[in-house]
Amino acid sequence: MPKGTISILGLGAMGSAIADRLRGTGYDTTVWNRTPARTEPHRAAGSNVAATVAEAAAASDIVFVVLLDHASVREHLEPVAAELKGKVVVNLTTTTPNEARDTAAWAAEQGLTYLDGAIMAVPAMIGTPASLLLYSGDENAYAIAKTALETLGTAEFEGADAGLASLKDMALLTAMYAMFGGVLQAVAMMRTVGAPAAQTARDIVAWLGAVVPLAELTVAVVDGGDYDAGAGQSVDFTRAAVASLITAAREQGTGADFLEPLMKHLDERAATGRGNADWVSVIEQLKITA
Amino acid sequence: MPKGTISILGLGAMGSAIADRLRGTGYDTTVWNRTPARTEPHRAAGSNVAATVAEAAAASDIVFVVLLDHASVREHLEPVAAELKGKVVVNLTTTTPNEARDTAAWAAEQGLTYLDGAIMAVPAMIGTPASLLLYSGDENAYAIAKTALETLGTAEFEGADAGLASLKDMALLTAMYAMFGGVLQAVAMMRTVGAPAAQTARDIVAWLGAVVPLAELTVAVVDGGDYDAGAGQSVDFTRAAVASLITAAREQGTGADFLEPLMKHLDERAATGRGNADWVSVIEQLKITA
Ligand SMILES: NC(=O)c1ccc[n+]([C@@H]2O[C@H](COP(=O)([O-])OP(=O)(O)OC[C@H]3O[C@@H](n4cnc5c(N)ncnc54)[C@H](OP(=O)(O)O)[C@@H]3O)[C@@H](O)[C@H]2O)c1
Ligand SMILES: NC(=O)c1ccc[n+]([C@@H]2O[C@H](COP(=O)([O-])OP(=O)(O)OC[C@H]3O[C@@H](n4cnc5c(N)ncnc54)[C@H](OP(=O)(O)O)[C@@H]3O)[C@@H](O)[C@H]2O)c1
Repeated sequence: MPKGTISILGLGAMGSAIADRLRGTGYDTTVWNRTPARTEPHRAAGSNVAATVAEAAAASDIVFVVLLDHASVREHLEPVAAELKGKVVVNLTTTTPNEARDTAAWAAEQGLTYLDGAIMAVPAMIGTPASLLLYSGDENAYAIAKTALETLGTAEFEGADAGLASLKDMALLTAMYAMFGGVLQAVAMMRTVGAPAAQTARDIVAWLGAVVPLAELTVAVVDGGDYDAGAGQSVDFTRAAVASLITAAREQGTGADFLEPLMKHLDERAATGRGNADWVSVIEQLKITA
Repeated sequence: MPKGTISILGLGAMGSAIADRLRGTGYDTTVWNRTPARTEPHRAAGSNVAATVAEAAAASDIVFVVLLDHASVREHLEPVAAELKGKVVVNLTTTTPNEARDTAAWAAEQGLTYLDGAIMAVPAMIGTPASLLLYSGDENAYAIAKTALETLGTAEFEGADAGLASLKDMALLTAMYAMFGGVLQAVAMMRTVGAPAAQTARDIVAWLGAVVPLAELTVAVVDGGDYDAGAGQSVDFTRAAVASLITAAREQGTGADFLEPLMKHLDERAATGRGNADWVSVIEQLKITA
């Protein structure tokens, strides 16, 4: 007995994994893809195939959108606003927070119930609890789609601002890529003395495993707002430490590109008389200066 | 029955913790500090107090040096080279790899057996297995001091190049500070929508806990040297991902300083026709360009 009807627009690696999972857990699925050949395995496995986006939109009360980017989403949703009216649209395509907000505003005008999603997983993880999917936007849409969303992985509702899921996704990815930049820098430093990358990576994984949990205590000072209480490491101390790391990297010939932003901010703190403040106060400088 | 005699030069936070631990595990300790008042608690606890560095150097076969920096180490060791001749000097003061190599060369000229150390721990961790101390330089000195070194925490010998302990320490700290830079960036992004720093930090700790272990597989391609095999994420894919993170950060008004170095390197890869290569090939560009 089918659990309900769901349409999926986009059958790339991620859209296919999502369609497979929904069909596999008992949903009556209708799929559409720009390049029709990609629908074949889904038809063979039991999905209905829609020839047009309008047909897919009309077929179900919940429509998942898993296209390439914001532009491709708008290109295909705008012409079928009438067919989508009153339905729940769950957009899992990666967009920036403002793009998500923009689509939410458009959806509100058109009378659709819009939920924006961000997928913190690769396709192979879909359907396992290890995959985390963040949602934001219309809370009612979340409630309606919840059972289906939970078949995809751990589901988390971030709030009514449709940009929140994407924002949190991107904040976490920012921390990850900055971390990976540092890993490359460290591996480069150790390669200068012949250490294999894999060995250095193993050492880094062990070390970061020990220090990552300290991040919580380290940034707690931000919420209190008192950077002068003196519990954490000072700007001056951190500045001296980072300066010697930069010197070491230069001595080894690798340069220290991935530490330069932190050094720049610590220098600026010191130059404005905040050398004794907690180094985490650097966060107050993270603003666009036009 | 004392295990042996050890002198400790420098009784700051770290030197004191080391002196306490060695004395507490049965070593006959002699301490010296520039400011004599700091020797008092050690005298009271049973250490011998030396009035001069020369006296401390003469008192033991193993001399630990835990001063502020490279300059203070050389300032106090050079005048007592004669007293140190034939002894094992273990320098735990933080220095750059080249400073360590420089002191090792000086020690060799003077006929001392020199071991350079790097402490990956805070004073409170000394004496627990959680504290990791890296050593490099004279392997014979390591063998002689090993029992004492192992009372301080987990001891690891990195090799005969005296700069190696410091280099590894600094490589790991580089990865850590780059990671913390990304954490600050992420927390700043989430603060723009009112998320408390502590909450974002908790989310980041969970997320990085899941992705840090991927670093090993991610950088494994470096050892093989074939960045075109296509197993990992491409330069083009990563470049698009990082570009959208930068856009998101700018949209939120925080800027994206901590991602700029990675973006710069990815742009350079793409501009030199390496868009299809593994993004980790960025590491090949981490060289000082004068
Ligand atoms: N794969 C992952 O690990 C992952 C993780 C998290 C989030 N995501 C996000 O999930 C979304 C889909 O990713 P994917 O991995 O499935 O990508 P993919 O394998 O490259 O597939 C892209 C899909 O988008 C369609 N498409 C592209 N441009 C289009 C256009 N102008 N009009 C209509 N359809 C268009 C493609 O259709 P054709 O078949 O006709 O080309 C295909 O169905 C992306 O936003 C991605 O960022 C992916
Ligand atoms: N504390 C840590 O968490 C930690 C972790 C890893 C490595 N380390 C390293 O351990 C070393 C000592 O750190 P610490 O935490 O003990 O520092 P600290 O508490 O600031 O103590 C500094 C020590 O160096 C002495 N000193 C400074 N300048 C001197 C000079 N010109 N001549 C003679 N003595 C001088 C001080 O003597 P006075 O008492 O006369 O001022 C004091 O004994 C540093 O290289 C540090 O980087 C520390």
